[in-house]
Amino acid sequence: MKLEKVKGTKDFFPEDFAIQQYIFLKFKNIAEKYGFKQVEAPAFEYMDVFRKKAGQEIDEQIFVLKKKGKEEIGLRFDLTVPMTRMYISRQKSLSKPVKWFYMTRMWRYEQPQQGRLREFYQLGVELFGSDKAEADAEIISIAIETLKSLGLTEKDFFVKINNRNLLEGLLDFIPKNKMQEVMRLIDKSEKIGKKNFELSLKDLGLDAKKVMKILETKDIKKIKPENEKAKQGLEELANVLKYLDKKYVQIDLSTARGLAYYTGTVFEIFDKKQKFRAICGGGRYDNLIENFGGSKEPATGFGLGLATLELLLEDKNLTPKIEKGPEYYIAPVNEKVYRKALEIADKLREKYSVEIDLMSRNLSNQFKYADSISAKNIIIIGEKDLAKNEVTIRDLKTGKEKKVKLNQL
Amino acid sequence: MKLEKVKGTKDFFPEDFAIQQYIFLKFKNIAEKYGFKQVEAPAFEYMDVFRKKAGQEIDEQIFVLKKKGKEEIGLRFDLTVPMTRMYISRQKSLSKPVKWFYMTRMWRYEQPQQGRLREFYQLGVELFGSDKAEADAEIISIAIETLKSLGLTEKDFFVKINNRNLLEGLLDFIPKNKMQEVMRLIDKSEKIGKKNFELSLKDLGLDAKKVMKILETKDIKKIKPENEKAKQGLEELANVLKYLDKKYVQIDLSTARGLAYYTGTVFEIFDKKQKFRAICGGGRYDNLIENFGGSKEPATGFGLGLATLELLLEDKNLTPKIEKGPEYYIAPVNEKVYRKALEIADKLREKYSVEIDLMSRNLSNQFKYADSISAKNIIIIGEKDLAKNEVTIRDLKTGKEKKVKLNQL
Repeated sequence: MKLEKVKGTKDFFPEDFAIQQYIFLKFKNIAEKYGFKQVEAPAFEYMDVFRKKAGQEIDEQIFVLKKKGKEEIGLRFDLTVPMTRMYISRQKSLSKPVKWFYMTRMWRYEQPQQGRLREFYQLGVELFGSDKAEADAEIISIAIETLKSLGLTEKDFFVKINNRNLLEGLLDFIPKNKMQEVMRLIDKSEKIGKKNFELSLKDLGLDAKKVMKILETKDIKKIKPENEKAKQGLEELANVLKYLDKKYVQIDLSTARGLAYYTGTVFEIFDKKQKFRAICGGGRYDNLIENFGGSKEPATGFGLGLATLELLLEDKNLTPKIEKGPEYYIAPVNEKVYRKALEIADKLREKYSVEIDLMSRNLSNQFKYADSISAKNIIIIGEKDLAKNEVTIRDLKTGKEKKVKLNQL
Repeated sequence: MKLEKVKGTKDFFPEDFAIQQYIFLKFKNIAEKYGFKQVEAPAFEYMDVFRKKAGQEIDEQIFVLKKKGKEEIGLRFDLTVPMTRMYISRQKSLSKPVKWFYMTRMWRYEQPQQGRLREFYQLGVELFGSDKAEADAEIISIAIETLKSLGLTEKDFFVKINNRNLLEGLLDFIPKNKMQEVMRLIDKSEKIGKKNFELSLKDLGLDAKKVMKILETKDIKKIKPENEKAKQGLEELANVLKYLDKKYVQIDLSTARGLAYYTGTVFEIFDKKQKFRAICGGGRYDNLIENFGGSKEPATGFGLGLATLELLLEDKNLTPKIEKGPEYYIAPVNEKVYRKALEIADKLREKYSVEIDLMSRNLSNQFKYADSISAKNIIIIGEKDLAKNEVTIRDLKTGKEKKVKLNQL
């Protein structure tokens, strides 16, 4: 048996972990500045909970645990489901709006293939209790500010924004029973290409040209709503736009977010060249809480995928250089001085990161190791030096050595 | 269907998450001071990987995923297995010793019952490549320093330390084929009680009194090794003790760590009154890497359970008070001033955490909300004030109000 990781998963070695942490901390900092609080949910939920949101089909798309008793349990495929469950469990006692964020992983069952991870990480927010445009604008601002804090600018990314009421209102010539299928088609229209999209619309018996013309509108002033639903959607969209930095945002009527549960604002963030998949996606889901058995309350949120974001940062040369070496490597010349060396290490650890020999190596091998871990300084603990209450410090950048008294360390 | 979380799991609401984070950061800070690097592994591994360490029985004790193709996958039950797999995948290229830490969760299948979580978090380290006592002493020091940094003292906790070679050497009158079973019995001797322990030893046909007398020795000077294995173990133990702060450490020959793979130093940390389960457990496992198909190399590590640690902190009144409110709550008096209010919020967010009305509430309801989230100050954005380029700031502690010019915010 070869010892290997499960296909479609990723090991986070120190350098991978450090990059992820760098991004996590930027997001955490922004989210907290907006008054969001971090939460975490269990990795798994009862299947009934998932099916409430996503129907029985979800069984095929996620990892399900082998039944040992009667419990049917599956691994979470997003955080919206567990967050909504958590919210409902305290719905009555929490002051609204409730503003939560998460930085964590989830799982989807896919056949192992290149580039499609079965375990993946997302940063995200859920905002419960407000149906206002200000709430949508706030979460979109958090996504934008996060990307900006990573060094990305309006030259690198943009937000496609739309409104499901507007879209469904403009397309109200489409029979209701076909609307969900059309939303799904619109959502994948870029992936399948213009021709296939047109063919699929025709297959549904629809006027493909008419649909496509509507979707191409990029100018809010050119949108002419002809019914209540479209009017309401247009107003909602205009209100959200009022509070957003225009530099980053573009109306895109073809941004549908396939999922059935979106009810108003929907948005996606892409790299400017649209080289990668969407970095971020979200929107308003005002019916989910009620559908889950809570009292009817509005909600809005997004999820931002770590993998695509890391690709974009790499593409823009914005992946951080992670400082990895300790400030000091302590090299005792022999076992006799080890306890003294340890004392010095402990003292320096009050302020600095410090490694000490754990291999009983000779000095020359210790130097090699200190070099390999990019230590900044070596402190050599020798018997003669100690007799004079001093140690030798070598700066590994300049190669210079100096004697330092113990009480001056 | 009632919407509930899976039995034996825990939701981390903001206050729970904040306490966890407080502990995580203390540990992270200590581990990094010792030059350890944080890593993370996938939540699941192929069953073959788990069985390598724990045998076929493990299938019963963990969550196994439903097979969809040929892959047999299970949720990790500890981090030693995935870390060892990760280490082996880069064994040749890494400089030794390799020092990794983790702060993450794992899962064990248990019938739902009070107090036994099926999803739980551990802080831990693995140190690969050194067979020296200095390495064991370093990881034990990290555990001790972590607990100290949380405010715990030698009055609150202590480390029970032992050595498997010493223990097996002293018990070498026990037939080899019974040794593993005896180690398991010793490990649970406190749980099952003295009488049951004695009976179980007798059932194995052993001289129970003799075994129990050996296990009771608490003074290293009274240990008389009569064979090579015991001598070696005693020397190893003495060497580890040399580098540890005596205040925290106590020899305990009945600390066996049941698992078959421990080879030298073993230790557990308990609260002084032994009110709770072990907070931390670990030791040396010099055969696991080879057993997993790597080149033979020594390793040592520990896992520290978050749940028990939190219980102890609570018991000692050391659970931190988490500051939760934002520095400013911004209260626009009406929609007309909202954009200006948002500008002020954005500016203040460069330094502070700031919430702003997202519910189009009147002032009185905004004040109630600001109070409920423990905001420190309210900034009231009114039309008349704005005309004079100022805002009103109310300190929610003192109740005092003052006017402040916009350019002085």
